[in-house]
Amino acid sequence: MRTGRLEAFSDGVLAIIITIMVLEMRAPLGDDLAALTPLLPVFLSYVLSFVYLGIYWNNHHHLLHATHRVSAGVLWANLHLLFWLSLIPFVTRWMGENHFAPAPTATYGFVLLMAAIAYFILQGRILATEGPASALAAALGRDLKGKASMALYLVAIPAAFALEWIAGAVYVLVALLWLIPDRRIERALASAGADAGSLQS
Amino acid sequence: MRTGRLEAFSDGVLAIIITIMVLEMRAPLGDDLAALTPLLPVFLSYVLSFVYLGIYWNNHHHLLHATHRVSAGVLWANLHLLFWLSLIPFVTRWMGENHFAPAPTATYGFVLLMAAIAYFILQGRILATEGPASALAAALGRDLKGKASMALYLVAIPAAFALEWIAGAVYVLVALLWLIPDRRIERALASAGADAGSLQS
Amino acid sequence: MRTGRLEAFSDGVLAIIITIMVLEMRAPLGDDLAALTPLLPVFLSYVLSFVYLGIYWNNHHHLLHATHRVSAGVLWANLHLLFWLSLIPFVTRWMGENHFAPAPTATYGFVLLMAAIAYFILQGRILATEGPASALAAALGRDLKGKASMALYLVAIPAAFALEWIAGAVYVLVALLWLIPDRRIERALASAGADAGSLQS
Amino acid sequence: MRTGRLEAFSDGVLAIIITIMVLEMRAPLGDDLAALTPLLPVFLSYVLSFVYLGIYWNNHHHLLHATHRVSAGVLWANLHLLFWLSLIPFVTRWMGENHFAPAPTATYGFVLLMAAIAYFILQGRILATEGPASALAAALGRDLKGKASMALYLVAIPAAFALEWIAGAVYVLVALLWLIPDRRIERALASAGADAGSLQS
Repeated sequence: MRTGRLEAFSDGVLAIIITIMVLEMRAPLGDDLAALTPLLPVFLSYVLSFVYLGIYWNNHHHLLHATHRVSAGVLWANLHLLFWLSLIPFVTRWMGENHFAPAPTATYGFVLLMAAIAYFILQGRILATEGPASALAAALGRDLKGKASMALYLVAIPAAFALEWIAGAVYVLVALLWLIPDRRIERALASAGADAGSLQS
Repeated sequence: MRTGRLEAFSDGVLAIIITIMVLEMRAPLGDDLAALTPLLPVFLSYVLSFVYLGIYWNNHHHLLHATHRVSAGVLWANLHLLFWLSLIPFVTRWMGENHFAPAPTATYGFVLLMAAIAYFILQGRILATEGPASALAAALGRDLKGKASMALYLVAIPAAFALEWIAGAVYVLVALLWLIPDRRIERALASAGADAGSLQS
Repeated sequence: MRTGRLEAFSDGVLAIIITIMVLEMRAPLGDDLAALTPLLPVFLSYVLSFVYLGIYWNNHHHLLHATHRVSAGVLWANLHLLFWLSLIPFVTRWMGENHFAPAPTATYGFVLLMAAIAYFILQGRILATEGPASALAAALGRDLKGKASMALYLVAIPAAFALEWIAGAVYVLVALLWLIPDRRIERALASAGADAGSLQS
Repeated sequence: MRTGRLEAFSDGVLAIIITIMVLEMRAPLGDDLAALTPLLPVFLSYVLSFVYLGIYWNNHHHLLHATHRVSAGVLWANLHLLFWLSLIPFVTRWMGENHFAPAPTATYGFVLLMAAIAYFILQGRILATEGPASALAAALGRDLKGKASMALYLVAIPAAFALEWIAGAVYVLVALLWLIPDRRIERALASAGADAGSLQS
């Protein structure tokens, strides 16, 4: 129960970040369907960011579910993650309004990279308190998906200046990689629970 | 208790969606009561959307109250529902500012339809984990109200282009249908609880 | 525990309402202290509304603390209250930007009146489920403060058109009346708890 | 558990305050990296305020964790703190948009000072209900860090009119002082818990 308020605060911030992005989609000026067309890139970047924030919420949910103790380091690592995620509405809007131009698209990737690094740090801090023999450590293993995502962002950022659609494709690819939520933790915990259950019975 | 954080996050997003709509009602320019008149359609569309979001919160509350296990599919079905609901402030504003013109009114209905479909999917995912013999399955029965709503939206969307007031009337009608909250679940759970109670005593 | 999610949702909406008002205080154009002067009426109306929303949160907190069962009627009465409270940022801004002109000041009072009526209805619905012999019924008594507030708003609204400062003074007076939070409930519950305690010992 | 809803409401307000600041960072007009340059002071003031709000959330979390009873005085002292914190987005924006000009920088310090005083009052109210022999009282001791912060703000506010960078440096210094979270409470509670544990075993 020590993680309760940390989860509540993170949920609050994530809920606000995911919702205020839509505030930026100004109502179109015309009153026919054609008036929606210029909004299409803004809408697409909104969908992409919504999916990313959904992924972060999902994985954060699983990560903290496997956390038993919140240290000061975990609190700050969590705030650091929320900081980078809070910049997503800003870069989403910039990228959408400029029709995926190189600089905004690269900046979007940079914020995604920093959020991925912040998540990696948070995960490391939690692992440090849970210990290498914990269910969480077993579940994460070598965290190939996390490391691959960071490598892909590092490719996408410079690529945005050459061919911006490649960067966009990489962002979509990473999102698809993660859309399958982090079931490793779920599965490891379930089996740990089953073990505990068989011990109790 | 597995549903706790899902409810908290959904509550956060719904609370923000329902509240930020009012941010779009800019203070009128004049300082007399007549200055409020041009805001009337904006206000009416705000009232309608507030009622719709209230209905979704209410039914979501009952649905998750009857849910015992949250799978990855449920998490994503829930985020999918929140995505369509998050577009309601956008279409509310567009419809209100354009005095219920055909295209915005039809788009409003389209978002309502997608939200209804998303709710239907979420319900299906939860039913799949709860099983056909669960109290929830019994409570929902054939879900006539849910299916009727979707059929009515499908009528209203094209109707908006012919006679926009018909679409508006349909939206109000569907809201009235649901204003009577989903007491089937409440009743079924209460009777299940009574059974459990009589077993315990 | 049945009231848990109702409280969480209400807290979310109230937290957003109380916070987004400050979003309306645009940063002044100049960079000296004199640039703050034109913001003074906006700031004063913000302080007044912050206090009002704080009072509502406080009393809502006490009211739901004494509630044991949430019926469908209570859910909708609560949403109805949140609807009127959600209009406070709108009227706060209008009143502040127009330096407490008659029509915005009267409209502000109208929204306060409707919120007071909505609170009265919510209280009535909860009393109906708790019963006339409940601790809550004893605590509220004849609810003189609630009725006096509504009467004072009814005086202030027309008064705003004659002498706007009288309306403003009445709003401040009602706020002061309530700043002493609804300790009747707190006290009655404490004594009920003490009784229960003495029964247990 | 009496503190539950107070924490939830405070978390909601703090989550919104910390998140809406980013709404004020309008997307730059150009679509190249140079377009980000004018946003730098706005971004820096955002980072500073994010850190301050993170510190407040952290310390508030520890303070309420050590609180067992919420009186009416605590409720209002908490709302008073939230009031001053809610002004941080406003002064952050003003300071950032005016490139740390004297008056906005001094006003920023004034709001920080008022928030520090409000926190001091809240702490005092909680100490009054917990008693001088409580773990919290032992943990806070003479609260040198709290008092030093207020003294530093009092120096920084007039200094902003002479040399604004001194004020900025002081704000950063105070933030660094607090970035080490209030582990006194954590440590004292842990040792109290260990005592309780040894008593139980």
